[in-house]
Amino acid sequence: MSDFQAPLHEECGVFGIYDKAGTEDVAAAAYSALYALQHRGQESCGIAVNVDGVITGHRDLGLVNEVFTPAVLGSLPAGGKMATGHVRYATSGSRTRANAQPMVVRHCKGTIALCHNGNLTNAAALRHELEMQGAIFHGSSDTEVICYLVTRARLQTASIEAAISNTMDLLDGAYSLVIMSPAKLIAARDPHGFRPLCIGTLPGGGYVFASESCALDAVGAEFLRDVAPGEIVIADYNGLRSMKDHCGTAKSTMCVFEFIYFARPDSTIEGSSVHEARKQAGRFLAMEHPVEADVVIGVPDSGLDAALGYSQQSGIPYGIGFIKNKYIGRTFIQGSQKQRENSVRIKLNAVKSTVEGKRVVLIDDSIVRGTTSARIIKLLRDAGAKEVHFRVSAPPFKYPCYFGTDIPDQKLLVATGRTVEEIRQVLGADSLGYLSTEHVVKLAQKSKCGFCTGCFTGRYPVDPPPQEPEDLHERPLHESEKKKVL
Amino acid sequence: MSDFQAPLHEECGVFGIYDKAGTEDVAAAAYSALYALQHRGQESCGIAVNVDGVITGHRDLGLVNEVFTPAVLGSLPAGGKMATGHVRYATSGSRTRANAQPMVVRHCKGTIALCHNGNLTNAAALRHELEMQGAIFHGSSDTEVICYLVTRARLQTASIEAAISNTMDLLDGAYSLVIMSPAKLIAARDPHGFRPLCIGTLPGGGYVFASESCALDAVGAEFLRDVAPGEIVIADYNGLRSMKDHCGTAKSTMCVFEFIYFARPDSTIEGSSVHEARKQAGRFLAMEHPVEADVVIGVPDSGLDAALGYSQQSGIPYGIGFIKNKYIGRTFIQGSQKQRENSVRIKLNAVKSTVEGKRVVLIDDSIVRGTTSARIIKLLRDAGAKEVHFRVSAPPFKYPCYFGTDIPDQKLLVATGRTVEEIRQVLGADSLGYLSTEHVVKLAQKSKCGFCTGCFTGRYPVDPPPQEPEDLHERPLHESEKKKVL
Amino acid sequence: MSDFQAPLHEECGVFGIYDKAGTEDVAAAAYSALYALQHRGQESCGIAVNVDGVITGHRDLGLVNEVFTPAVLGSLPAGGKMATGHVRYATSGSRTRANAQPMVVRHCKGTIALCHNGNLTNAAALRHELEMQGAIFHGSSDTEVICYLVTRARLQTASIEAAISNTMDLLDGAYSLVIMSPAKLIAARDPHGFRPLCIGTLPGGGYVFASESCALDAVGAEFLRDVAPGEIVIADYNGLRSMKDHCGTAKSTMCVFEFIYFARPDSTIEGSSVHEARKQAGRFLAMEHPVEADVVIGVPDSGLDAALGYSQQSGIPYGIGFIKNKYIGRTFIQGSQKQRENSVRIKLNAVKSTVEGKRVVLIDDSIVRGTTSARIIKLLRDAGAKEVHFRVSAPPFKYPCYFGTDIPDQKLLVATGRTVEEIRQVLGADSLGYLSTEHVVKLAQKSKCGFCTGCFTGRYPVDPPPQEPEDLHERPLHESEKKKVL
Amino acid sequence: MSDFQAPLHEECGVFGIYDKAGTEDVAAAAYSALYALQHRGQESCGIAVNVDGVITGHRDLGLVNEVFTPAVLGSLPAGGKMATGHVRYATSGSRTRANAQPMVVRHCKGTIALCHNGNLTNAAALRHELEMQGAIFHGSSDTEVICYLVTRARLQTASIEAAISNTMDLLDGAYSLVIMSPAKLIAARDPHGFRPLCIGTLPGGGYVFASESCALDAVGAEFLRDVAPGEIVIADYNGLRSMKDHCGTAKSTMCVFEFIYFARPDSTIEGSSVHEARKQAGRFLAMEHPVEADVVIGVPDSGLDAALGYSQQSGIPYGIGFIKNKYIGRTFIQGSQKQRENSVRIKLNAVKSTVEGKRVVLIDDSIVRGTTSARIIKLLRDAGAKEVHFRVSAPPFKYPCYFGTDIPDQKLLVATGRTVEEIRQVLGADSLGYLSTEHVVKLAQKSKCGFCTGCFTGRYPVDPPPQEPEDLHERPLHESEKKKVL
Repeated sequence: MSDFQAPLHEECGVFGIYDKAGTEDVAAAAYSALYALQHRGQESCGIAVNVDGVITGHRDLGLVNEVFTPAVLGSLPAGGKMATGHVRYATSGSRTRANAQPMVVRHCKGTIALCHNGNLTNAAALRHELEMQGAIFHGSSDTEVICYLVTRARLQTASIEAAISNTMDLLDGAYSLVIMSPAKLIAARDPHGFRPLCIGTLPGGGYVFASESCALDAVGAEFLRDVAPGEIVIADYNGLRSMKDHCGTAKSTMCVFEFIYFARPDSTIEGSSVHEARKQAGRFLAMEHPVEADVVIGVPDSGLDAALGYSQQSGIPYGIGFIKNKYIGRTFIQGSQKQRENSVRIKLNAVKSTVEGKRVVLIDDSIVRGTTSARIIKLLRDAGAKEVHFRVSAPPFKYPCYFGTDIPDQKLLVATGRTVEEIRQVLGADSLGYLSTEHVVKLAQKSKCGFCTGCFTGRYPVDPPPQEPEDLHERPLHESEKKKVL
Repeated sequence: MSDFQAPLHEECGVFGIYDKAGTEDVAAAAYSALYALQHRGQESCGIAVNVDGVITGHRDLGLVNEVFTPAVLGSLPAGGKMATGHVRYATSGSRTRANAQPMVVRHCKGTIALCHNGNLTNAAALRHELEMQGAIFHGSSDTEVICYLVTRARLQTASIEAAISNTMDLLDGAYSLVIMSPAKLIAARDPHGFRPLCIGTLPGGGYVFASESCALDAVGAEFLRDVAPGEIVIADYNGLRSMKDHCGTAKSTMCVFEFIYFARPDSTIEGSSVHEARKQAGRFLAMEHPVEADVVIGVPDSGLDAALGYSQQSGIPYGIGFIKNKYIGRTFIQGSQKQRENSVRIKLNAVKSTVEGKRVVLIDDSIVRGTTSARIIKLLRDAGAKEVHFRVSAPPFKYPCYFGTDIPDQKLLVATGRTVEEIRQVLGADSLGYLSTEHVVKLAQKSKCGFCTGCFTGRYPVDPPPQEPEDLHERPLHESEKKKVL
Repeated sequence: MSDFQAPLHEECGVFGIYDKAGTEDVAAAAYSALYALQHRGQESCGIAVNVDGVITGHRDLGLVNEVFTPAVLGSLPAGGKMATGHVRYATSGSRTRANAQPMVVRHCKGTIALCHNGNLTNAAALRHELEMQGAIFHGSSDTEVICYLVTRARLQTASIEAAISNTMDLLDGAYSLVIMSPAKLIAARDPHGFRPLCIGTLPGGGYVFASESCALDAVGAEFLRDVAPGEIVIADYNGLRSMKDHCGTAKSTMCVFEFIYFARPDSTIEGSSVHEARKQAGRFLAMEHPVEADVVIGVPDSGLDAALGYSQQSGIPYGIGFIKNKYIGRTFIQGSQKQRENSVRIKLNAVKSTVEGKRVVLIDDSIVRGTTSARIIKLLRDAGAKEVHFRVSAPPFKYPCYFGTDIPDQKLLVATGRTVEEIRQVLGADSLGYLSTEHVVKLAQKSKCGFCTGCFTGRYPVDPPPQEPEDLHERPLHESEKKKVL
Repeated sequence: MSDFQAPLHEECGVFGIYDKAGTEDVAAAAYSALYALQHRGQESCGIAVNVDGVITGHRDLGLVNEVFTPAVLGSLPAGGKMATGHVRYATSGSRTRANAQPMVVRHCKGTIALCHNGNLTNAAALRHELEMQGAIFHGSSDTEVICYLVTRARLQTASIEAAISNTMDLLDGAYSLVIMSPAKLIAARDPHGFRPLCIGTLPGGGYVFASESCALDAVGAEFLRDVAPGEIVIADYNGLRSMKDHCGTAKSTMCVFEFIYFARPDSTIEGSSVHEARKQAGRFLAMEHPVEADVVIGVPDSGLDAALGYSQQSGIPYGIGFIKNKYIGRTFIQGSQKQRENSVRIKLNAVKSTVEGKRVVLIDDSIVRGTTSARIIKLLRDAGAKEVHFRVSAPPFKYPCYFGTDIPDQKLLVATGRTVEEIRQVLGADSLGYLSTEHVVKLAQKSKCGFCTGCFTGRYPVDPPPQEPEDLHERPLHESEKKKVL
């Protein structure tokens, strides 16, 4: 889901439930699922409920428990059999309610609620075309473009799923969608399968769609299977159906960063456990970058799985090296660079007895700017570690992502224009080793899909969008335009 | 501005500022103006600011000072030369952010912010037509319909004002609009001139549009004139221009309730002072319904002007009969019937020394359900009034309004199906007199416009909307639809 | 009620209810009463409820409806027969919760809740003495001193009322108290009777004490009489009793500013209607400072009563000259000087049709800094008034008050060091007249009490406190103290 | 810190900083320290700052980041050299602001701010005695009793530390105190040393006192040593001094639950690392209750350390068995039993790949009601675990604590009246083993102190308080009292 205002990209989580039996509180289920998916987006969230075909939604900026207070959750209509939910991450520029989801729009055939995870690469062109036909937009996201295309297609087609299929002919890039119409709940995934999307079954009958299987667990649903790349899955009164017109039309290129960073370790994606993939990353790391040491520790929580894998492969004992203050949120979602700096030692504290006088292997899943990592290494040295050998369970990322991941400006990345040795010096580690690109595509050992490694290699499965044209809506008027009678 | 969900109608206030010199803080000016117009709508409000053609808005449910906290007001971009603002009143069904204004939409020629006071009588039909052409709607108000029509027309026309003019060909009913495009600020009023709209000039150069002149005073602008019924007025870099294509195409039928109830007494509308019109109502009342009494008092604040007029005409001394608790809001905007009942004696207290042992003439501008009036009369009797003669400075209203006024269901109106004598008994007054319809159209003695008296007479200048068709978006699915593959 | 931090003084409102029949919701009654007394204090408020001897209280900074949300009000224990309430006004220095009331303290004989309106002149000395005996204080108000003295006296006496009586031997200055013990509700007033305090009876049996009779009206109680200066009144299981030991021990010197400014016009104090007293002020003004003019108008709401009196006495017609924006609070309680300046024209607007081309008599009850008055006069001139003759229904106040009224620093008062002619020039009026001190003590024509006019004359009925000694708690340490082993 | 209203007991965290150099922002340091101590109390918190002897405090209900918003933290006076802070945990009955700390009281020799962790066993008797001497109390906590005793003693003594020492002669039970006077910061610990309290040094000069060493790390202080049981430590202008009059007057009986449950693993208490003590608990468990299994997992975060120890001792591989939702708080502090039940599966999810088809050893630090543990075991079985062997790194607790730990009513404890086998059946585990009391006192292998094991054995080092006498303040009046003139 992109934003036109700035070259920013976001990660999101989507959810939908069709409770055939009508025994669930679908709004409460969406709430639980969004809690489970909160790690995929902390900027805004929303839930839309469908009661006998009438769709009502609420969405706002904030975490799930901030937006959905007991009063707000209680104000959603009861008795529905369908609901969708969305969590969204975005940087400041696009922090507006207008871009929050589910987007609920009323059109010729009723109302739909649409949730989107991903990023279209041809959104600007599509939007321009729509505008030239009289479309108006309330926000700046590509999601509103998809809404328009689907509802327009619906005018020409016999069903909402046919309209979605026609729309998919027009879309380039990454999208995992959950769409709720008056009578149906539909999931669709782009032919590349960039972003995950899976299906669960409800014990009492009915279906659930979610970005990750951890959301199925949260609502007591059983994992059925992933939505295939290019597939459209329809849940309605008649059960579950699939349209596969777009399947196989492109090479499968799942985002490997889902396994390394985004997804929750307890999720299973494309047949592989995320936790196992991360342990495997640790094992590969131990093979690629062995070292003599006394203890292996992970940065909580992102490096713990790989640390265990490294320990198992290397035989060096696993230790608990840090205590995370459980009352403070995750570094990644904080405000300014300055705040991040000050807060490290309050958020994380080294366990002296684990590292004092020891040679420590420290594992994390990524290095972004390098400042946090440097501070963590200093924490260990202050706590008495004799040596700190830093191992990273992913290759250095150096290139922008056009498919839904927010990567800071290249200038801010520590890996840009530095050798590994130079990075090591910046961090103050005794040694430094990154996982190789060769190994990164082998982490998910049970998965049959291919992977996108664009952020590591700069080679993308879909052409990046052209340099964005001057945006009519967000550029200042030229002096001549001010004077002219427009 | 109507809502499709229920036969509800609202009163709103609109505002726009074009500060040619760039010396004003236009967001702060909009804030002050909305404060001055707050009586026209307490449900939601919003401000949109235009900085060199880039339009940014904020709107939410709540009063102006609730929505625009210092932080929120400060977050609006500075340095703009144009802004628009809106306050809205609506009943519970449509209390959603999606219907708050200004509505900011991005379209083929840039962005517009649109503010609307009034109610279209053909909104449902227009909306249906748009939907059949692929339009999608985020909210349920007729204002979004106007946005669509304007932006579509813009595709075919050379200017935004031409697009507005073309759109006006399609609209039936009441609308006073303020529209901000990247380079222009435009006001438009329906050919009947149902709702007020006036123009002011800024001391440093530039123009202001507002529902009432009290908002001009609030921003230090000087009253220039009213926008004529059917007129489109354009303020831009080149000054002020007018398009009069729609002027004279319909009979002028200003809402007389603006003079009686809605507008602020310090406003001048259609050339007449609202305060003077209300005093005149009191004078007419004294002629129509004279009585021997010791003191004339008004229900604060709505009856004070007419009470003074009654006193002047009758020679009975004017008194201050009530003290209003200044920490509690106005009856009209409160929640349930129950709450209204309990709160009267906390809100209003009789001044014993004014009424004790006296024959009192009590004046108010309207009786709705009658319960509040009955309680006020009881307050006077408890305070020792010997007689209470109730005079109402408007005729009994008995019919729905289709042009932007919220009148409760007829069944709730005390005047429905009751003679004046029966109403008097319900209220417990010693005598009761209403202003006649003959006089009500003569209150605004300096105005040349005609008046709509539909709510008193049931005779409307424009055909009411047909019985609303089943609304696709808000009706439950039929059982067959649930089963059918839609 | 003083504050030790700064020479600040406050006005407050007190309330208590003893519902013998147990048919009232005493917390809700206190809430209604505090709403009615809100004009006496907007900084903080509180309610304490007594259920079978167990006292529970809640108090906080904010207006009554801010502090007592439905949830908070609902959380107070139900089923009680007694409650007390308090509203407090104070300037920023002492805006702390620790000083909010009712003060609930637990002591040797149970718990008491104490409410205080007034200001002790010997609080600092009493506090010092208590501290030297081991007392500790949580706040800085003189109210906590009274709590201590009462509870200490209780150790030596057979009843709480005897303890109060003994305590009154020690107190100098102004105090109207409402004290709730496990079994009794007690009112007490200082022998001078500086601050008002009255008694009402409940229709179902029981008693109410309140600063003003408007609070009796708000809870449906009937006015019985004022508490006499020096009187202690006890309401309990046995009915109402009175202790008069302190009655007549001092000259009665009621604060005349209660009639001019503080009290609500619908209240009756010391036998006189406040509204009538203000009308009388207008009549006296018309006699003292007559002028040829076309209309008499009052600054809402403070000048309206006197304007009516001036009109009646002079025969010049009464007019409605201003509309007050009902969504903004009263000038007196606003923040900085700067904010006050900006907000005048948003708060108040002149009614052009009333003043245009006219010679206007403008009435207000006071001039403080003069800036607001100057702005109001300018509003009238901008609206077309030919002449503006300003009449003030009180003498110029020039001296501090030590008995519970907050008067700004003398340097800020426009009357300090200026002749009336100089003040007129500052204000920009065509003429200016103040009520004389001779007349001000005759306003309350039915009252038999004497009046304190210290703020006009500098002559006080009780000696002002000595120059406050250096306060141990709020002064910085001297350098020697820091080093010394204290 | 006890509460008189109900037999409830709390755990708290205390902090104080004396920054000799004046280079620290002491309020910000207190904020960081309270964040680090937040696990010791989530009900209320507060900070008091001392600027040149003038003490200003703020305290309220809520978490540190809820109470100390940027605005509130910014409103504390700058430039101080001393501050104290407190976090508090309490059950609903005493959730009042009046009991929040630091308690700031003004007395004969200035102002003190007092922070207390622990619970006096003779508070009721001391309070009664004080009341009989005229003391008044604003809250219901024993902390206010300590304030009184200290300030009274201060009247007779030459210094605040002497007053504290005299006060300690009177106190029975558990107390770790941090007291700030105008010129000194003082720490004191009861002679039994029930609750921890340690001393750190600031790099720029100066001292810090804190409940746990993790708070020293949070403010960049270096651990110096623990405050000895019975010791009074004074930090002031002259450096650090110690008074040892009460040292050795009682047997050392540190609360062992600090090592098992309360304290943060990264803290060092009485010379032992909490993390190592918990690993040791796991090792002892493996010796006492060995089992054949495939993986050892801990309940996050409380069971992780012991799980690692169990794995190391037994040779069974350590695994990551659960993912904790990082957006939800800790079970212990939640509301009703009902809420706890619903939220387990949202808070915790099993990592299927770790446990599927495996024999699992599951470790946690305690079982309270048993319901959460039963649900966790079910989570594992649902995820495919073949066997679940539950090991608890503490003995069953069955007896109330009188020294500052909140233990639910015995009736609610699963261990009350059940054999281990019966508990196993309730939980649904394949086997269950608790750590023995013999081993529990050996966990902190580097500590020389003794331990209190009262909650496991019912044998207490100090006599429990007598059955509380009828509390005057909180008991309803008897009928006779209502009638009698009290």
